[in-house]
Amino acid sequence: MRHTVSGEDYREDAGRTLREIRIFGIKYDGNIKKGDNLARITIESLGKEGIKVEEGDIVTLTHVAVSKSIGCTIGFKQVKPSPLAVALADRVRKPPEEVEIILRKSREVVRLVGSRIITRTKSGIVCANSGVDVSNVDGGLSMAFHPRNPDRVAKKIRRQFLNEGVNVGVIITDSFDRPFRMGQVNMAIGCSGIAPIRDLRGSRDLYGYVLRFKRIAVVDELAAASELVTGSSSEGIIGSLIKGYKYDFSETGVKSILRPRKKDLFL
Amino acid sequence: MRHTVSGEDYREDAGRTLREIRIFGIKYDGNIKKGDNLARITIESLGKEGIKVEEGDIVTLTHVAVSKSIGCTIGFKQVKPSPLAVALADRVRKPPEEVEIILRKSREVVRLVGSRIITRTKSGIVCANSGVDVSNVDGGLSMAFHPRNPDRVAKKIRRQFLNEGVNVGVIITDSFDRPFRMGQVNMAIGCSGIAPIRDLRGSRDLYGYVLRFKRIAVVDELAAASELVTGSSSEGIIGSLIKGYKYDFSETGVKSILRPRKKDLFL
Repeated sequence: MRHTVSGEDYREDAGRTLREIRIFGIKYDGNIKKGDNLARITIESLGKEGIKVEEGDIVTLTHVAVSKSIGCTIGFKQVKPSPLAVALADRVRKPPEEVEIILRKSREVVRLVGSRIITRTKSGIVCANSGVDVSNVDGGLSMAFHPRNPDRVAKKIRRQFLNEGVNVGVIITDSFDRPFRMGQVNMAIGCSGIAPIRDLRGSRDLYGYVLRFKRIAVVDELAAASELVTGSSSEGIIGSLIKGYKYDFSETGVKSILRPRKKDLFL
Repeated sequence: MRHTVSGEDYREDAGRTLREIRIFGIKYDGNIKKGDNLARITIESLGKEGIKVEEGDIVTLTHVAVSKSIGCTIGFKQVKPSPLAVALADRVRKPPEEVEIILRKSREVVRLVGSRIITRTKSGIVCANSGVDVSNVDGGLSMAFHPRNPDRVAKKIRRQFLNEGVNVGVIITDSFDRPFRMGQVNMAIGCSGIAPIRDLRGSRDLYGYVLRFKRIAVVDELAAASELVTGSSSEGIIGSLIKGYKYDFSETGVKSILRPRKKDLFL
């Protein structure tokens, strides 16, 4: 089932037919606690700046904000590290409690490199340290970890928005290291209400040539775009509102774009 | 040497302090030919839509547009495939002429998977088919390939903008498959006037916790964001104009973020 959400894809004012996308940071000065309604927080925070969340917009939220709102955090003091975690901690120069949570949240350890433990998370994402974060949680006392099923959490947040009367696509993001390239890039770990891929195979280019391979991972591009406004760490920006991007409705989720190892082109 | 380009990072009107980023597609109806001045084309095309290119903006341009403007294209009829290209062509289900150019533009073949030849290009980028494109060139008669030094080409285009009186960051983009994830994402292959990485290591988060790893690959995030407006193939959109993103000046180029194989976390 696909339908196109209108958004404000084309600016018709001033005679323009030009596509324009606008991205706003969602600034929240409070400390997100378990049980907080992120849809309400988003709508209220943007409302204070005069920005309205509208049908067809996309809301991206950082995984730390989301994890805090659903209780996917744990204090260092609550963790009893296993002997394996203790042994590894020295090698990767991390507290044993952090290593313990990294291991618990992983399905498999893919590699050990320097201070990074590359794992496949329970939800199937290959990344450093299972996406366990100490930054932006509570100053170093606790860790935030990925929900076990981020697509389901995105769906829950999308329902919160529907309850507030607005139909949006929701993307949960985290920034990851990548093979081949230095520097982290923000990617989608879960999504709801938006098709993760825009499939252009079979469509024609400007000269009539039929595209054979073009399938754009739009949720990852939207996630990357959102970090341009969430970027730094100290500003309390928990995500972004993206206006003007026309997308297809889908509930297939980010899970559908995680490449099975056997089909991986590069490995 | 670093200095900060002001841009319009914060909207001060209406009492807002909210960061807002705006992205416009650069629509060009003509056919780009060797020798065309892309700065002038960009300024004129956006001017028709009432959009002004200003100091501190970022201009992204697709590699096919750039390659055409500097003559990095070749007609199928001009190519005499080597015996190796002929032998490979059958296996990867591509014309031998295309395989020949893919091999010529590569420094090494990394892998052969299905119809993809994963190579490291002359400029050091690991990608499918050396970035050789048939789409959006001239309808299937010619191929466009990456310039040998995309950073230098970005610098040349940046100088064209300076000659038109405007100081912008320039990013040349191409969309690539990735390990671990399905769907292509737009990335930077060359840049000028903008630091490819925003290094946040040592800065503090909202709770005073010192970040240890955060280095954001901003040129790749800007490239990804730009595909939200260039996206489809038939609209003649050759790139994007990004307003409101505050960046550091640098001429280190994309070359500086290509991970040396020995330092690759994932491989």
